Amino acid sequence: MDLTERCVAHVELFKGRLLHAFRDDVELPDGTVGHREYIMHPGAVMIIPLVDRADGTQAVILERQFRYPVGETLIELPAGKRDPGEDSLATAQRELREETGFCATEWAFAGKLQPAVGYSNETIDVWFARMLRAGKRKLDAGEFLEIFEASPDELLTWCQSGRVIDSKTLVGALWLQNVLSGAWKVTWNRVPAGPHGWVTA
Amino acid sequence: MDLTERCVAHVELFKGRLLHAFRDDVELPDGTVGHREYIMHPGAVMIIPLVDRADGTQAVILERQFRYPVGETLIELPAGKRDPGEDSLATAQRELREETGFCATEWAFAGKLQPAVGYSNETIDVWFARMLRAGKRKLDAGEFLEIFEASPDELLTWCQSGRVIDSKTLVGALWLQNVLSGAWKVTWNRVPAGPHGWVTA
Repeated sequence: MDLTERCVAHVELFKGRLLHAFRDDVELPDGTVGHREYIMHPGAVMIIPLVDRADGTQAVILERQFRYPVGETLIELPAGKRDPGEDSLATAQRELREETGFCATEWAFAGKLQPAVGYSNETIDVWFARMLRAGKRKLDAGEFLEIFEASPDELLTWCQSGRVIDSKTLVGALWLQNVLSGAWKVTWNRVPAGPHGWVTA
Repeated sequence: MDLTERCVAHVELFKGRLLHAFRDDVELPDGTVGHREYIMHPGAVMIIPLVDRADGTQAVILERQFRYPVGETLIELPAGKRDPGEDSLATAQRELREETGFCATEWAFAGKLQPAVGYSNETIDVWFARMLRAGKRKLDAGEFLEIFEASPDELLTWCQSGRVIDSKTLVGALWLQNVLSGAWKVTWNRVPAGPHGWVTA
């Protein structure tokens, strides 16, 4: 059965500083007309940054950030919105640098996730990063977050216990678990840093 | 460091049929004032329904549903919004029944996820269901979806390949993988069905 819904009217509901909302009239599979309200989003990236510890094990870089909509300080993987026209890897390099201070010289694309398919068109690209070099971070105005590292086992324990509740970070844990076990493969690429410490094109 | 942001003003931006948006002025950790725009959501549940196959293996019930905001037919675990005052398990029983036709007599709470912490207060409770009895489904007006079953290995392969992209379903795969491997434990409870086939209180 073709479940596709076709746009018959597209109306802007609201344009705020962050949220941009629309209501479309759509033709449903049975020919009747329905209504769909949703947020248009520029897209985002998430990074799973892996650091090599002195004891030969790997750790993942995490953030602690207050999320006003849910009223809590959450544990999350680094992530951020794409700038207009910005390529996915360039966003990942920029956000990792801005939020954590780290530059990575090896990157692997994992996959995509859509956080809220019922009411947002947001897609988040998921990247692994390794061979990290620490630097100075540069947070956006109004952005406050703390960086820390945890072992993959700690992260997975927190996913089970409810200490990690952010969906993208839970999806990151799925990727991390399966890549570290060898069940899922990713392809690592060496990405030279540009003059500002990351590739911009 | 206390990262908490405190509300100093709360303004309704927009109330549609689905979306209810607000902008708050907030006091940031450094004492300056920032702005946060977000969607208020009633909360939702997701169900990981397990069926016993004749060959002794287990399969999971999935849905195929067109998601207008992302313009694609997606593979998802059953899920739905909570009605006002409705208890989480009652929502899970109702949504499983409405969307798939199945009633389950054994339920286990897994955990919670928040799909879009940057701009929505939505929380999704994750439930496992087993001991399923097939019945007649009852979709909402304007809701069109197909039901099918897959093995846990198939679901995980699709999570890696990008065929599954919905974040809640990816998080469901994380739960399924770890519960089936025995790494994560859940507690199963026998839940008698009420007169309408599910418990309403």
